[in-house]
Amino acid sequence: MHVRASEELPSTLTDLAGAFRERRLSPIEVVGTLLGRIEAEDKVLNAFITVTGERALQEAGRAEREILAGHHRGPLHGVPIGLKDLIYTEGVRTTMGSAFFEDYVPDHSATVAAKLEEAGAVLIGKTNTHEFAYGPTGDRSHFGPTRNPHDTARVSGGSSGGSAAAVAANLLYASLGSDTGGSVRIPAALCGVVGMKPTFGRLSKRGVFPLSWTLDHLGPLTRTIEDNVLILNALAGYDSEDPYSVSRPAEDFARELRRGVRGSAIGVPHDFYFEHVEDEVGERLREAIEVFRSLGAGVREVEVPRLPETLKAQRLTLAADAYAIHEGRLRDEPERFDGEVRERLMDGERLRAYRYAKAQQRKLRAKDEFERALEQVDLLLTPTVPIAATLIDEREVDIGGYQESVRSAVTRLTGPTNLTGFPSLSVPCGSTASGLPVGVQLIGRPFDEAGLYRFGYAYETAVAGVRAGR
Amino acid sequence: MHVRASEELPSTLTDLAGAFRERRLSPIEVVGTLLGRIEAEDKVLNAFITVTGERALQEAGRAEREILAGHHRGPLHGVPIGLKDLIYTEGVRTTMGSAFFEDYVPDHSATVAAKLEEAGAVLIGKTNTHEFAYGPTGDRSHFGPTRNPHDTARVSGGSSGGSAAAVAANLLYASLGSDTGGSVRIPAALCGVVGMKPTFGRLSKRGVFPLSWTLDHLGPLTRTIEDNVLILNALAGYDSEDPYSVSRPAEDFARELRRGVRGSAIGVPHDFYFEHVEDEVGERLREAIEVFRSLGAGVREVEVPRLPETLKAQRLTLAADAYAIHEGRLRDEPERFDGEVRERLMDGERLRAYRYAKAQQRKLRAKDEFERALEQVDLLLTPTVPIAATLIDEREVDIGGYQESVRSAVTRLTGPTNLTGFPSLSVPCGSTASGLPVGVQLIGRPFDEAGLYRFGYAYETAVAGVRAGR
Repeated sequence: MHVRASEELPSTLTDLAGAFRERRLSPIEVVGTLLGRIEAEDKVLNAFITVTGERALQEAGRAEREILAGHHRGPLHGVPIGLKDLIYTEGVRTTMGSAFFEDYVPDHSATVAAKLEEAGAVLIGKTNTHEFAYGPTGDRSHFGPTRNPHDTARVSGGSSGGSAAAVAANLLYASLGSDTGGSVRIPAALCGVVGMKPTFGRLSKRGVFPLSWTLDHLGPLTRTIEDNVLILNALAGYDSEDPYSVSRPAEDFARELRRGVRGSAIGVPHDFYFEHVEDEVGERLREAIEVFRSLGAGVREVEVPRLPETLKAQRLTLAADAYAIHEGRLRDEPERFDGEVRERLMDGERLRAYRYAKAQQRKLRAKDEFERALEQVDLLLTPTVPIAATLIDEREVDIGGYQESVRSAVTRLTGPTNLTGFPSLSVPCGSTASGLPVGVQLIGRPFDEAGLYRFGYAYETAVAGVRAGR
Repeated sequence: MHVRASEELPSTLTDLAGAFRERRLSPIEVVGTLLGRIEAEDKVLNAFITVTGERALQEAGRAEREILAGHHRGPLHGVPIGLKDLIYTEGVRTTMGSAFFEDYVPDHSATVAAKLEEAGAVLIGKTNTHEFAYGPTGDRSHFGPTRNPHDTARVSGGSSGGSAAAVAANLLYASLGSDTGGSVRIPAALCGVVGMKPTFGRLSKRGVFPLSWTLDHLGPLTRTIEDNVLILNALAGYDSEDPYSVSRPAEDFARELRRGVRGSAIGVPHDFYFEHVEDEVGERLREAIEVFRSLGAGVREVEVPRLPETLKAQRLTLAADAYAIHEGRLRDEPERFDGEVRERLMDGERLRAYRYAKAQQRKLRAKDEFERALEQVDLLLTPTVPIAATLIDEREVDIGGYQESVRSAVTRLTGPTNLTGFPSLSVPCGSTASGLPVGVQLIGRPFDEAGLYRFGYAYETAVAGVRAGR
């Protein structure tokens, strides 16, 4: 069991930031403690590709001096964070989890990396990723698989597996991942942390190695909703250097956090794609629904039509975009890819352009269909992943008698909102009997991240209350 | 020679509308006169697929009664117009120039058709189009080729050939066409009328049969700039039923019309794709540039990089979208297509999805490149078409020793702005020695149609002054 409660440190980013502000803790000591934990735990977990120990201690030192001088850069001042290793960091190796980039040191930082630094965060390491982010299990990286802190024989989920595992194992307070078909939400669910995929265009993708230009999102992984809000607050905003960035007025994603969910409406899509899940996952979901009911929310079935087609369009777009991005490497040095990743990439070569064109039409209609479903309710609720974490290298799964590839199973509930770009939040909702985490996915209207956080916070608070015997 | 000056009627829509307003002319008489002209001329020109004579007389009667009652629906009140026969008209056959739809009568009208009716315009007929708008010559329609009023052995250009020929031959005051690679601007140039392709998303495409979802634009063809402004003023505006429609505040496109061009800057792109033109076309262009100089505008060379790649991306997108739209018909009843159109459509089948994905990346970069070129100047100036009208069914052309397909030649100066979506206006700029019209293309910044009209109007006025010996 690699999830150990910290005796010495606050368990949330929010509390940690408070302790820094009130000078009850020293950023240098916290970074030192976390580096010690990483040293002890990460040989097994393999959540990090690069640990930036010295640099982190320097940054923590700077943060500490600033605190002592009465200067706070922001709510993340001194907070140790990790970045998925496809987010460029100036002067710090950025590998994409691939042999191609094992020695690549960018000469500029991604906009999000720069923003976190501006907000005071301390980069503690670059987290492991499925090679080029092209896989939802996190067990194919040039740097080895990331293991699930709840059962190290099992996957972390992916592709942002290192980001999720490190947060779950208390090696970090927060991390950034990327999500093209579920790659933030899936490992968040399988590792038992909070993972947000915000609305498409909400966070700048400048300086992030792409998997699919039109499906990629960045998003934070944290242990609590409040912590997640702090990260999103620091990152959201228009970037003229990212052609997909959306110009929106600044907002505080915490603004609705404590408003509760009484009188609000939750929609549960009744469709094979959302219903066909492992028994224990279904049970946790029903329990989560009961919690929402007990908090005064109405829950009803809603229809989101043609989800299988929407998912198919997402998958085709992903395959074609990924091939386009890796075409040169596949031609020139195919042997440097992981075999499984290469094979999957090559599947994108033969796809026809007219089907891509039709997939973009499906995208427009899927947006309409989700919009319409969300006219009747405040958000949609589904499991994040229909199964709990599978074994490393396991590739087939049986769900209630249906054989399905692991890749298809774990991405089919998250993929549709990569096509539509609607915000989706994965919140931990208990575990299986064998202790594997389960996540519930909340899907909101475009740019309603604040609403999703409100529901997530109400749920999290209620469950914590029950756990604490309140 | 089928362009005859009208003795009896005003030559411009602007004057006609004025004559109606002042009760100097009767809409019924005007429609009657035009129907007589169509009867006499259109057997040869073949600009119309369907002439809505009876209906037009009824509408003109209604307009006339309203005028007599002191009621004006708007600046187009009583004005006879035509619509390219892929714009749906409730109760009026809409064929797409194709055997598939030769008896198709829509049960609803396109948003633009409804808007024209609201503004008081009288539909006089549905104009001929290259089959499914898939060809820039206008000589492959199930209803026969449209002939150029300036030389009936020659093409009108296309695909909106009927719309251009009818306006050029004084059979109509204005018409609407569609433009996916130049299909408004090319026939406008080859027939000697004004043709505007506004910014992508400016006009609603709801109820218009698509050729390419992402490249299609609608636009007006008229005899003068002022007339063109009146049509665009009546049509621009957001339509929630068109996913590509852009929400913009209402504006008057005539607002800059008389401001002149003194002190403004015109950019002439120096690139093979813009320079490699027939001698006489080049001469007309240089003369047009001299006119602008004489009006006080500065003219300089500018660079728009990678135009060949931009054009290639436009063509690939077009081919894939068109195949996607016609896939079912190609499979089920291929024999109902014109052979040449079918062959071209089939070329879209084999294209690869990853190339389509890359073409969309090229689109983003091309927008940037055009934006950057337009930071230094007010607009770009090119020929609209590098050659004058070719013979019906002619498919190869020699331009200064280069063999080029007619289709490639006539679309290569217009196609790039279908990919970028930037507004482009074709203005007549004289004729070849054999009397074939030549057009100059003005390309502006997104949503700066008013600026393009300003330049077009200044040029048109100056040239008319010279012609009138002023």
